[in-house]
Amino acid sequence: MLNHVKVVLVGTSHSGNIGSAARAMKVMGLSEMVLVAPQCEVDAQAIALAAGASDIALNAQVVESLEQAVEECTLVVGSSARSRTLEWPMLEPRDCGRKMIEQAAHHRHSALVFGRERTGLTNDELQKCHYHVAIPANPEYSSLNLAMAVQTLSYEVRMAYLERQERAYSGNISQYQAEYPRNKELELFYSHLEKVLVDTQFTSKDQPGKVMNKLRRLFSRARPEIQELNTLRGILTAVEKSIGSKR
Amino acid sequence: MLNHVKVVLVGTSHSGNIGSAARAMKVMGLSEMVLVAPQCEVDAQAIALAAGASDIALNAQVVESLEQAVEECTLVVGSSARSRTLEWPMLEPRDCGRKMIEQAAHHRHSALVFGRERTGLTNDELQKCHYHVAIPANPEYSSLNLAMAVQTLSYEVRMAYLERQERAYSGNISQYQAEYPRNKELELFYSHLEKVLVDTQFTSKDQPGKVMNKLRRLFSRARPEIQELNTLRGILTAVEKSIGSKR
Repeated sequence: MLNHVKVVLVGTSHSGNIGSAARAMKVMGLSEMVLVAPQCEVDAQAIALAAGASDIALNAQVVESLEQAVEECTLVVGSSARSRTLEWPMLEPRDCGRKMIEQAAHHRHSALVFGRERTGLTNDELQKCHYHVAIPANPEYSSLNLAMAVQTLSYEVRMAYLERQERAYSGNISQYQAEYPRNKELELFYSHLEKVLVDTQFTSKDQPGKVMNKLRRLFSRARPEIQELNTLRGILTAVEKSIGSKR
Repeated sequence: MLNHVKVVLVGTSHSGNIGSAARAMKVMGLSEMVLVAPQCEVDAQAIALAAGASDIALNAQVVESLEQAVEECTLVVGSSARSRTLEWPMLEPRDCGRKMIEQAAHHRHSALVFGRERTGLTNDELQKCHYHVAIPANPEYSSLNLAMAVQTLSYEVRMAYLERQERAYSGNISQYQAEYPRNKELELFYSHLEKVLVDTQFTSKDQPGKVMNKLRRLFSRARPEIQELNTLRGILTAVEKSIGSKR
């Protein structure tokens, strides 16, 4: 499904950025890179920074115009700072990811479009996009580099993908299953604990209630597993012995 | 509020990564960087990659141990791949961001902890964290570089911050907030507990490690509040007295 989301880099100047973008994509499970009129080659620097994702950079489709890059796409989103001169439908990164995965689930392609390192996308290119997406950066310093922007938007695509999968297979997600004690055993632990608190004179025999409620609340949050409960019981027994053996 | 979230880099080898991490932080509005036993200097390479965020790298606090880095923090989250050998309370990046902002809103500090480039955090360091957070990367290629991981988790902190601001404007924020101890106090509790386990001969003096790790894991899940921690300390003291008074 993630191969239905393309990452389109327009007019990239530094080959290292192509490599880093490829790495960011692959880590997030994306694979389809398109280079529009790149100003550099996919060279050794690109390969070095791509690390294990050099396949994505080497297999990138190279085209002359943004139009060519996105012609099969039903959803085209351009990455851009929020603009005052160009009012355009805006998406948050999170909604952008969700919309793309919605498309992908119906075998439709979408494109995340990133502009030049210094100047971004031209107005003409921005107007070829259905939406713009702005990463809500620090207004005092919003200089996100290209690969970081690819990383962040790809991350939201992946999160939307995982959310959707979880919904699809809900009930069948985590493999690890903790073994929890039966309530009976839990109550035996609390009785034991209460006894030790009285024995050590931490609480008086008539008034253990308030402290015990606090401790129940604490241990309920932790939800001890069987093994852990056994450890706690063992500690209580060790305390009893230490007191008793001195008697 | 965002200055209550620290980014802690442990044993970083490449100064460029410190620079790129500083840039990622600043773009997302974070400012507090701590370097634990760095294996490199904040040199020209770091400054170059930090671009307009060199102030963050240059002002980074440098300390010897993770414990020092996080002693004032009420929430410590270690970045880690999901581990099979060490089961620990896990957070999704999104929940991690939200929890940190919740703390920050009440003037509490939290720390995002990142390990070494090749080997990550040691088990010992991971066990000093209250939670682990894993960026849900592509299982076939999960090699996220350090700065990208900083970018992604800082992004979720920022998103949580913006969400909260939005809710604050719509007057929709709950008032109740648990008071959590600083990490220093938590560590004092663990030392105290360890001492009592040895005193009661539940563990031998040389081998408290394994049991202590189990107990850390349990209490990390519970995340004791200040009052609760005081209760636990009080119980330990009562046990000590009971043993001692019989001697």
